Amino acid sequence: MRIHVVTPVVTSGLSTAAHFEPYARSGTHVTQGDIVRGPATIESHFDEVLAIPDTVRLAAEAESSGASAIVIDCMTDPGLAAVREVTSIPVLGPAQTAMHVAAMLAMNFSVITASEAVLPAIDALVSQYGLRDKLCSLRSIDIPVHELGEEKRVGQALCAQALLAVEVDGAHSIILGCTGMMGWAERIGDHLAVHGHEGIPVLDPVVTAFKVAEALVDLGLTPSRRTYPRPLRKELLGFDEVVLAVRLDEDDR
Amino acid sequence: MRIHVVTPVVTSGLSTAAHFEPYARSGTHVTQGDIVRGPATIESHFDEVLAIPDTVRLAAEAESSGASAIVIDCMTDPGLAAVREVTSIPVLGPAQTAMHVAAMLAMNFSVITASEAVLPAIDALVSQYGLRDKLCSLRSIDIPVHELGEEKRVGQALCAQALLAVEVDGAHSIILGCTGMMGWAERIGDHLAVHGHEGIPVLDPVVTAFKVAEALVDLGLTPSRRTYPRPLRKELLGFDEVVLAVRLDEDDR
Amino acid sequence: MRIHVVTPVVTSGLSTAAHFEPYARSGTHVTQGDIVRGPATIESHFDEVLAIPDTVRLAAEAESSGASAIVIDCMTDPGLAAVREVTSIPVLGPAQTAMHVAAMLAMNFSVITASEAVLPAIDALVSQYGLRDKLCSLRSIDIPVHELGEEKRVGQALCAQALLAVEVDGAHSIILGCTGMMGWAERIGDHLAVHGHEGIPVLDPVVTAFKVAEALVDLGLTPSRRTYPRPLRKELLGFDEVVLAVRLDEDDR
Amino acid sequence: MRIHVVTPVVTSGLSTAAHFEPYARSGTHVTQGDIVRGPATIESHFDEVLAIPDTVRLAAEAESSGASAIVIDCMTDPGLAAVREVTSIPVLGPAQTAMHVAAMLAMNFSVITASEAVLPAIDALVSQYGLRDKLCSLRSIDIPVHELGEEKRVGQALCAQALLAVEVDGAHSIILGCTGMMGWAERIGDHLAVHGHEGIPVLDPVVTAFKVAEALVDLGLTPSRRTYPRPLRKELLGFDEVVLAVRLDEDDR
Amino acid sequence: MRIHVVTPVVTSGLSTAAHFEPYARSGTHVTQGDIVRGPATIESHFDEVLAIPDTVRLAAEAESSGASAIVIDCMTDPGLAAVREVTSIPVLGPAQTAMHVAAMLAMNFSVITASEAVLPAIDALVSQYGLRDKLCSLRSIDIPVHELGEEKRVGQALCAQALLAVEVDGAHSIILGCTGMMGWAERIGDHLAVHGHEGIPVLDPVVTAFKVAEALVDLGLTPSRRTYPRPLRKELLGFDEVVLAVRLDEDDR
Amino acid sequence: MRIHVVTPVVTSGLSTAAHFEPYARSGTHVTQGDIVRGPATIESHFDEVLAIPDTVRLAAEAESSGASAIVIDCMTDPGLAAVREVTSIPVLGPAQTAMHVAAMLAMNFSVITASEAVLPAIDALVSQYGLRDKLCSLRSIDIPVHELGEEKRVGQALCAQALLAVEVDGAHSIILGCTGMMGWAERIGDHLAVHGHEGIPVLDPVVTAFKVAEALVDLGLTPSRRTYPRPLRKELLGFDEVVLAVRLDEDDR
Repeated sequence: MRIHVVTPVVTSGLSTAAHFEPYARSGTHVTQGDIVRGPATIESHFDEVLAIPDTVRLAAEAESSGASAIVIDCMTDPGLAAVREVTSIPVLGPAQTAMHVAAMLAMNFSVITASEAVLPAIDALVSQYGLRDKLCSLRSIDIPVHELGEEKRVGQALCAQALLAVEVDGAHSIILGCTGMMGWAERIGDHLAVHGHEGIPVLDPVVTAFKVAEALVDLGLTPSRRTYPRPLRKELLGFDEVVLAVRLDEDDR
Repeated sequence: MRIHVVTPVVTSGLSTAAHFEPYARSGTHVTQGDIVRGPATIESHFDEVLAIPDTVRLAAEAESSGASAIVIDCMTDPGLAAVREVTSIPVLGPAQTAMHVAAMLAMNFSVITASEAVLPAIDALVSQYGLRDKLCSLRSIDIPVHELGEEKRVGQALCAQALLAVEVDGAHSIILGCTGMMGWAERIGDHLAVHGHEGIPVLDPVVTAFKVAEALVDLGLTPSRRTYPRPLRKELLGFDEVVLAVRLDEDDR
Repeated sequence: MRIHVVTPVVTSGLSTAAHFEPYARSGTHVTQGDIVRGPATIESHFDEVLAIPDTVRLAAEAESSGASAIVIDCMTDPGLAAVREVTSIPVLGPAQTAMHVAAMLAMNFSVITASEAVLPAIDALVSQYGLRDKLCSLRSIDIPVHELGEEKRVGQALCAQALLAVEVDGAHSIILGCTGMMGWAERIGDHLAVHGHEGIPVLDPVVTAFKVAEALVDLGLTPSRRTYPRPLRKELLGFDEVVLAVRLDEDDR
Repeated sequence: MRIHVVTPVVTSGLSTAAHFEPYARSGTHVTQGDIVRGPATIESHFDEVLAIPDTVRLAAEAESSGASAIVIDCMTDPGLAAVREVTSIPVLGPAQTAMHVAAMLAMNFSVITASEAVLPAIDALVSQYGLRDKLCSLRSIDIPVHELGEEKRVGQALCAQALLAVEVDGAHSIILGCTGMMGWAERIGDHLAVHGHEGIPVLDPVVTAFKVAEALVDLGLTPSRRTYPRPLRKELLGFDEVVLAVRLDEDDR
Repeated sequence: MRIHVVTPVVTSGLSTAAHFEPYARSGTHVTQGDIVRGPATIESHFDEVLAIPDTVRLAAEAESSGASAIVIDCMTDPGLAAVREVTSIPVLGPAQTAMHVAAMLAMNFSVITASEAVLPAIDALVSQYGLRDKLCSLRSIDIPVHELGEEKRVGQALCAQALLAVEVDGAHSIILGCTGMMGWAERIGDHLAVHGHEGIPVLDPVVTAFKVAEALVDLGLTPSRRTYPRPLRKELLGFDEVVLAVRLDEDDR
Repeated sequence: MRIHVVTPVVTSGLSTAAHFEPYARSGTHVTQGDIVRGPATIESHFDEVLAIPDTVRLAAEAESSGASAIVIDCMTDPGLAAVREVTSIPVLGPAQTAMHVAAMLAMNFSVITASEAVLPAIDALVSQYGLRDKLCSLRSIDIPVHELGEEKRVGQALCAQALLAVEVDGAHSIILGCTGMMGWAERIGDHLAVHGHEGIPVLDPVVTAFKVAEALVDLGLTPSRRTYPRPLRKELLGFDEVVLAVRLDEDDR
């Protein structure tokens, strides 16, 4: 099977297939693509809405070229519903997947985002996904996404916030609230263990989505067509490259 | 004051300032604009995400040119959060406004959309707006938006569905679930009255949003900057016209 | 149009038409009346239930004399349902209106009441109005309503509690939880801005209700008759003045 | 112990101590009183608000004369919070008690009221008491309260609606939604059993409240003073007999 | 009537009929039994699942020998649903009963358990019983159940946690979260009163269940057979003594 | 990796490793075991509680012998919490996993069980797992589990109920509510497609749990130790074989 990761930012190299390969089981190929129109990072609804059109295009092209499933590589799940409408394969969002998996593993979860500005968007997703009762708290390390490469600073901030989530808020599991935090989960878990909190699951949401995507492909489960009906072809100005890429209804290409 | 209506479809004439003027109180000016990039109608998340970038541009331009408030003229509230982030004036979505006003006036509400395909999007908004307990039912007349001009057929279908919502589902109020149904509210209410259900509020959501916009301008209330922080200026490929239009943070134009 | 404000306390001068005129748009007349039987202030359910009968009378009389809408001038929305039953015009309660408007503008809201004793009543309204998921916190300044005239003390207490709501509780908007705090909203907002929290909406609930009343009159929307059926005329001992004032069913006066 | 039943209607004989005595355990005395100001029956919020002041008086007088607990004999729990504020003994409302007891005994409950007009009030209580997830359905027999004496008609209607609640709505328990239906519970249960639905609890709410009152007296449990703080003595016009009866704070009678 | 208390631990003497007799009204006999297979105390789901089979046996035997109702003497309500399935009399769990009674008496409740490890189980019960909106907080005194006999230490810890629940968390009522805390309720209430929090109900859950059991017997109310259908007799290896004790369907013993 | 399936019934052959092998990806070994003490099938809480002790033993033994994860092969998730307490590897329940996965893929889900008697247990799990807002309906085919081998009858009943769930209840996805329905998902989906409902996900819950188990093993995610603390070793009468199998705290075997 081939899992295609759509990274909805124009910053190349932030996320690559190589980042995901260590997690792929034998037999899973990973491909990845960045959007070419949109923002450098997603830290607002404004960033997000400009990232979505090209995200839809990349996802549709990935299906056309034979991808088995798609992972949208951003914690606000940008374009998740739209991509599901125009494709027929599993499409996973890190936020949705990680929140549901955390809810399976623990009494509640806290989310730690990079930028404070993203908290309301995450909060809206919690409501939309129907998991309000499982939310413990929302925290941020207050570091812009483009500075997430500063290992030491980010590590210290994540450890500090995770500890506060557990000790002050009462978190039973932690979700890293930015796909740019990929790779940190294990170390945060170790840090919590060292401070006496062993066995707190720390979820790397995009990796979680990637692995659940594998499972869904095997299961033959795809998003409900009733929830995500295929859009009708209609007049559409601009976005030619997107329209060209997608398969719409009443469309016998 | 000037209320600017952004109609997030490229079909000119579907909605005009003239449609809103009868509802404007003395002293309120109405301006209206259609997007120039995007779909002819919004009947899917796919349509919606392609409509949003230009919706954001139009809204930002309206603020720059002195609008007092903005009404987004589509029942899925496309781009509501993004527009609020890049502006400092009241921005209203018909779905959000109508659902809250209906919840004020009645024990519950039913929404009647044009296309069946839009129901899941409305359902997600109900969750996101925190009004799950007030939802009675979601129904549709199963007529594509571009055929909403067929008065007789639409009128019969709306009356029939409204009656079913009241008699079968137990609705205490009705929200017309497509801004293309503007102007139908009173007739539906009369139809219900004739069938023995007097005093069921029937909400025309975009008109409701328009009138609440007037009220918010007078009140000096604007969307919470904490919920909708102004986005940071950052690298952004494409969407030049949008980026040019908006005011971002760390931006001293 | 004429908006009639019913102030459900016997303390004359606490609230007057002149308080509301600055908020009325051109073309809106304001009238106001105090009840003549009931308590000096409402700080308990006990106070409230004794205020309601005369509130109903005043509201019914206002409709009879041609009022377009009624605003009940107390944060526990005393008699809201009863008044809606016996009238056919918009009837607004400050708590209900402000909570729904705050929920439109922000991720959540906190309410700051005068007396600590009123918190449970507000909490019950939050449940009844279906907005539990939008409540951030309930706070009070712990000052009796009849001392709300002490400007300096009240101002300091409101600023302090609003700041705690924002910084400690995480409020994205603030509702002043007593109609006796009318006029404070802007100053509290300024105070929050000075402390680095710009753009937090602070809602003056009775003014919010007043402005939404204007909008509803224009919209021709009235409370659902199915939710608030007109009561049947029946034997009723006492309260002659109330019974005389209201229009009941099977009643062809 | 002595349980005092306050019947919040002026129709004498509708409810008497003799109605409750069969349910009293040995050692429990029953006293009962009707209000002398207010409506003949309660079928609207309007009826209710006019019944409450004298209900508060009767309850307070009952406590003064040594009652151990108070049961408010009407399914909308009129004045429940106000009475709890001015007394220090258990005060029970049939709706609150029956809903909680039904929620203990069954997966869900349906309420069958007399008048259709009361459904919205019951619905609001369900929200206020936090039991929305346990509500199966609300039904009515559409018979005015003052005709509840017509045994045959009432019995047939109750049996029919209970059967529909069980078979169509899926009810696991039934609450008789009017205290005027006292005495019908067992027969409805038998009727359901005859139709193949054995073991569906049918709750007589005022009797349920009466028996839970006995239990609370033994337990020494009273309503939370924090939720129901004792009101402050203050200027109050009218309602002299009520004010005279209650014990208020800063009041050393 | 005879109320039978099933104590689902093998530690004899922890709970006896004598503990309950002071609470029994005249005419109520108390019998009590400990399980003979299972754990010394219940502080985990593991303990609980090993306690349940013999709990079911004891309960079934109690019904056979004429008990009028059964109280399960542990705060996780072990086996509540299973026991209800195999019996036809009221079966009460302390957690379910106390949470519902607390919700009747106060705006919210906090639960204070013995062992921290039990909090997630209590949290799951809150969700299962549909009372999430009424939960204020969960706290523990962090003392193992078998050390609950250390009066001074337990008393100090309970008083401290109750005070924190009230002052920090905002609790309006307190539930003692372990049946091993029987007898402490009054003293905790007194302690809270001394610290200025008069009238906070403190519920002793197993005693509350005991008294509500008496009420239900009088009311003739039993758990819904639709929610708790009698199990079918089928092949069952092991647990002979349990199978022998219970009455199953298609079973004409 | 090795996934161990614990089938909590004593009926050998109902479920075997061979049933799961077709779903295992390369590199996954499947082992399976039936309990030897307990019921032939689980159709009640009574059946369930007698199945759990040996389920815990089998799960603990599987971990000791090197299993990577455990799947509990019954739709009421018997013993899920207890097994998680005594192990340190992923433990999956079909109900919990399928409900969360369905909630990811569709607006809502309906569950179709074998026996009507199991509906209340499934309903309680929906509440406990926090997914009430995602539940569309609960249905049953009303066929005892031991007759699930009757292919034709079961197939017809499942198809009929699934169609009703979709067309009458409005289901967007379907969960087969008994692990004994393994293998039916695809055919039901085809049946729905033939009737015009293409793309409705039909989840085979135990297979879903099996595949998510694989994913969790790869992810290194295990149930939260804070939610499922390891039980303390303590006196325990009976269940020697269970106690021998599990690893408890303060236990240095």
